[in-house]
Amino acid sequence: MKEMFSLGLKHVNNRLEVLDQRRLPHDENWIWCKEPKQMAELIQTLAVRGAPLIGVAAALSLAKYIEEGASAENFLGSALVLRNARPTAVNLMYAIDRLIEVSKKNNFNSIKIIEEAQNIFNEDVSLCELIASNGERLIQNGDNVLTHCNAGGLATAGIGTALGVIRKAHENGKKIHVYVDETRPLLQGARLTTWELRRLGIPHTLLCDNMAGVLMKEKKIQKIFVGADRIAKNGDVANKIGTYSLAVLAFYHQIPFYVAAPSTTVDHKIPNGNYIPIENRQAKEVQMSFAPDNCNIFSHVFNPAFDVTPHYLITNIILDTGVILPAQV
Amino acid sequence: MKEMFSLGLKHVNNRLEVLDQRRLPHDENWIWCKEPKQMAELIQTLAVRGAPLIGVAAALSLAKYIEEGASAENFLGSALVLRNARPTAVNLMYAIDRLIEVSKKNNFNSIKIIEEAQNIFNEDVSLCELIASNGERLIQNGDNVLTHCNAGGLATAGIGTALGVIRKAHENGKKIHVYVDETRPLLQGARLTTWELRRLGIPHTLLCDNMAGVLMKEKKIQKIFVGADRIAKNGDVANKIGTYSLAVLAFYHQIPFYVAAPSTTVDHKIPNGNYIPIENRQAKEVQMSFAPDNCNIFSHVFNPAFDVTPHYLITNIILDTGVILPAQV
Repeated sequence: MKEMFSLGLKHVNNRLEVLDQRRLPHDENWIWCKEPKQMAELIQTLAVRGAPLIGVAAALSLAKYIEEGASAENFLGSALVLRNARPTAVNLMYAIDRLIEVSKKNNFNSIKIIEEAQNIFNEDVSLCELIASNGERLIQNGDNVLTHCNAGGLATAGIGTALGVIRKAHENGKKIHVYVDETRPLLQGARLTTWELRRLGIPHTLLCDNMAGVLMKEKKIQKIFVGADRIAKNGDVANKIGTYSLAVLAFYHQIPFYVAAPSTTVDHKIPNGNYIPIENRQAKEVQMSFAPDNCNIFSHVFNPAFDVTPHYLITNIILDTGVILPAQV
Repeated sequence: MKEMFSLGLKHVNNRLEVLDQRRLPHDENWIWCKEPKQMAELIQTLAVRGAPLIGVAAALSLAKYIEEGASAENFLGSALVLRNARPTAVNLMYAIDRLIEVSKKNNFNSIKIIEEAQNIFNEDVSLCELIASNGERLIQNGDNVLTHCNAGGLATAGIGTALGVIRKAHENGKKIHVYVDETRPLLQGARLTTWELRRLGIPHTLLCDNMAGVLMKEKKIQKIFVGADRIAKNGDVANKIGTYSLAVLAFYHQIPFYVAAPSTTVDHKIPNGNYIPIENRQAKEVQMSFAPDNCNIFSHVFNPAFDVTPHYLITNIILDTGVILPAQV
């Protein structure tokens, strides 16, 4: 397997490594991922995250596995484990299914499988570039844009989706300022997006998720850009929890609401958002350190990792293939 | 001064003590407050919080001060320090102004001042009872209600405002379930409201602020009850940051949105919400432990403690005097 580098994933010195996103921004700690089972766990525990990136990471770990001599049976078993690691983002299933198809067509030829995994990585880099070029035209000089969660280089093999659009506008010389939703419970905005924006030198302001409405009311936000974990056939979008509330607030304040994603995020098998499985995660993610040990007995916790934004609240979807109306998916 | 007890404030054994709300729910630690200057600091740092309670606490600390022999000059100086401790909640100014007026009328007679402070405490207890009785009629058996921040016993001298309404419905035998917004950045919902609800045995579910919208979309919330820090003449309401977003979401989903507060929260001098001063607090409250030490240099932080909800997004205001339309304030 060739050497490959992205912000959160690399293959170098014959090792597949992931940047542990749970420990950012404090520690930049790379984990050597030795087998697909370990990759599934890294995906489940969010060391590796972001809809496009988990697809790429899963594909590379499977390719590495076959390169190191895994049997067809073990390969297929591991593919299944990875495929079930997280239920909402379709990119994971899409990447694994591509690898399985190629492997079956080519009698588990390792060279073909490795090639396909590398293609998935490279394609994701290109898709990000295309999304960014398509989307950056929507940003005007002087705009204040808001983003939720992290849809940047850490979430993809390339420059990101929503954050890639913002980055491209900045690189093209547009003066912009980014409002960053902290994104509870796991603070991907506060921990990861601000980390990326600091590296890129893009001016930004961190806020709690419940503060975005007031900024909209005060006309301090001109546009909203978010990523996606799955897009249904009718244009409904699953994305990080909190996206739906943002979309309603944007609608109420008449602020354009854009979703940026690669075409690999579209699930043509699903007629609308009601069919997208939403992952519920552990109570302790919400409770953090402030809950006493025994409080689970008395206090229930609601912790869906994603929500679905209906197509009619979305201004445009920015794909690698162009900027479209949700109805055109 | 007589003995007085509330959930977060007491006068006992000749000591004025406050429950340190910063350390709840882990530690129930009472702080002996020896002078008004200390009380001002306890209010600023949120050891004592809640619009009605900070008014009561400030009044008692001033009365205690005069009881212990403070001069008229020191009394008035301390009154000013307390009055400026926090800018948004009008109850603080209202309570202090009442004490100043009585003291001036009675030539700084300590008995009269102490009596007035005790009245302020006792009146707050009664106001809470009246609000609860007026508001609980709005709750039906089987309702799921949502609340934001903490407007309970910890925020008043009595049973609370919004949470008092909920408590009363529960005590009257109505089967209810409470959704509790965690309320970033300082997690008053997660730390304080769940603590109160556990003590009261009222079933509840904790959620991150950005999850409320999805619950509304799924029709899992029938009513929303929040408190208030200041109500303008036209019915606009300042309350904990995040209240405005909730009100917009409630409007969009056609869910009744109720504000519960004592008449002491109404500021008749202020024509509308634009005139309510909004306190901005320190960046570190938002950044918590996840921000690296140097990140202030690069990342700005937006941290208003309150926002203003316009009157047209409020279904009713529940006062001690009755349930009214915002226009009737």
